[in-house]
Amino acid sequence: MRKLEKTLLNIQPINYELKKEIQNHLNSLTKPVGSLGKLEEIAMKFCLITDTAKPVLKKKRIVLFAGDHGVTEEGISAFPKEVTVQMVYNILDGGAAINVLARHISSELSVVDVGVDGKLEHLALIDKKIKRGTDNITNGTAMTLNEATKALEVGIEQAEKAKTEHIDILATGEMGIGNTTSASALFAQLLPCNVEDITGRGTGIDDEQLQHKISIIKKILEVNKNNFVSPLQTLAAIGGLEIAGITGLILGAAANRIPIVIDGFISSAAALVACKMNPLVENYLFYSHLSAEKGHKTFYDLFKVEPTINLQMRLGEGTGAALTINLIEAAIKIYNEMATFESAGVSNND
Amino acid sequence: MRKLEKTLLNIQPINYELKKEIQNHLNSLTKPVGSLGKLEEIAMKFCLITDTAKPVLKKKRIVLFAGDHGVTEEGISAFPKEVTVQMVYNILDGGAAINVLARHISSELSVVDVGVDGKLEHLALIDKKIKRGTDNITNGTAMTLNEATKALEVGIEQAEKAKTEHIDILATGEMGIGNTTSASALFAQLLPCNVEDITGRGTGIDDEQLQHKISIIKKILEVNKNNFVSPLQTLAAIGGLEIAGITGLILGAAANRIPIVIDGFISSAAALVACKMNPLVENYLFYSHLSAEKGHKTFYDLFKVEPTINLQMRLGEGTGAALTINLIEAAIKIYNEMATFESAGVSNND
Repeated sequence: MRKLEKTLLNIQPINYELKKEIQNHLNSLTKPVGSLGKLEEIAMKFCLITDTAKPVLKKKRIVLFAGDHGVTEEGISAFPKEVTVQMVYNILDGGAAINVLARHISSELSVVDVGVDGKLEHLALIDKKIKRGTDNITNGTAMTLNEATKALEVGIEQAEKAKTEHIDILATGEMGIGNTTSASALFAQLLPCNVEDITGRGTGIDDEQLQHKISIIKKILEVNKNNFVSPLQTLAAIGGLEIAGITGLILGAAANRIPIVIDGFISSAAALVACKMNPLVENYLFYSHLSAEKGHKTFYDLFKVEPTINLQMRLGEGTGAALTINLIEAAIKIYNEMATFESAGVSNND
Repeated sequence: MRKLEKTLLNIQPINYELKKEIQNHLNSLTKPVGSLGKLEEIAMKFCLITDTAKPVLKKKRIVLFAGDHGVTEEGISAFPKEVTVQMVYNILDGGAAINVLARHISSELSVVDVGVDGKLEHLALIDKKIKRGTDNITNGTAMTLNEATKALEVGIEQAEKAKTEHIDILATGEMGIGNTTSASALFAQLLPCNVEDITGRGTGIDDEQLQHKISIIKKILEVNKNNFVSPLQTLAAIGGLEIAGITGLILGAAANRIPIVIDGFISSAAALVACKMNPLVENYLFYSHLSAEKGHKTFYDLFKVEPTINLQMRLGEGTGAALTINLIEAAIKIYNEMATFESAGVSNND
């Protein structure tokens, strides 16, 4: 059996038996019941995912997957494809937004090349290149089924490595010029929804370019319409190598009961694919932020999940996830460090 | 001239001359222009407040004011008044939610007694008690004008102390059983708005108790209607000692150009009073979160300001402000630590 199949079979339902014990502890803390709102919900979910009423959140790791997109030939992005290589170097050198935020939250950052169209040499790089960018999906599939499976397994391996290295929380990140086009196509096919409702300006195209991008995505869906037989085949047809890597990381995190924070628009597309491959995955995810990328709200509304914050960010890289890890850490500290009514000698109101 | 008058006169308009330099720097960073959304707006505002294009955010301090409310005699709270003393001890001992979050964000926490109805002895306490709780505002004014001014000046002194001690950002916090009643009355009078639209469940009262609380607030406004001559007199009539302390802290922060983060419902009432005393104050404030306390949305809508996050919290103490300080720190690090397109050799799209 391939690693992908094994991982999908290893994802277990959540054991809700601990729920009462966790809730009792939350209610014993010196605050009105429920008054810490989402922080309490986050603490509950983290405990359930890790199957304990004594949660630990120390080691954090953001795993950023980079890949290029053949569809950039169609002029759908505000930035040229070369920027993927340049930005990956910038990230490896510590100068990008995600580096600043990873340091801010004391998180590790792994950078994985699954499909950048260019030679990358850097000591910090995890080189797992499968091929030099996807093929242009206006002409056919992005990659073969075998390539997609390999990219998924790169992600799964990163989750397994995280488990071995005692990582307490994972987060997704990505870099890949052109990837909002691929993500929008995946959403349109898998949610499903209208292309117009899920397509936005990415790194910053104008009105005319947006209309062009919408027509390109419609063409992508038409050209590939016979390939949408399963979530895996859909991913191989219109996804990206980095999107497949993230999908694998999510599956691997779920199989290993590591809470995982989903970054923005691109990572949500990967989460959607992962949940379609095995609906139990949903239990293991924290959605981070509502991106300013237009279609992200469509995803949250139609998939009936909720972001944690909304700071009108639209950068990707894992930046929204990083800020959310910080809130999750706050929630776990609240759970672990607050005094109880009894220990502090405070009158309760029951 | 009293310290209060001098402080009000010392609040200066923002100098917008630096705006272009700050914006140019933000746009030079390796990300699509504006793609960090509110983080970029926060960095801009922080720079303008501190009047520099080279912002520093190292030392943080949350100042928590505690006071009791005579109106608790009317049975408007889910918790008995004694809980104020008990919770202040819990905070001084490090066991409350605000302690956990202050440690999480590496912030100092000052606890100031301006009006707790009980003897407090603790090495960490800043004892500035003016009187043992406000008078019951269903019978008349909460405090005299002189008491209100003293409480404001306690807050101003804390801001001046912060300036002397090189604090880079301040935040407000409070503890006082019964204070949502006083805050709701202030909002109803000063926004103004209907009592029904601004009154919520505080620490957790039921439907019947909520109706009772609304009728008590209407009575408070009726009994005190001749006292609403100025914001200061309104504060003295229906405010709280801790609310006055926070108002003073806000005025002092503005006068000393220290960015200040407004916590939740109670702190917003203090911010409203401060802005009514001098509208220039508005430029110096960061609103933190939308509280789950029902009336908070009414405040944001009518006062035309926006919270940074919404985690459905309703605890007070400074908890929402603490989480927001962390986002502001992230924004300043983004501004200070990211590589530029030029330094990183990344192609820009202009």
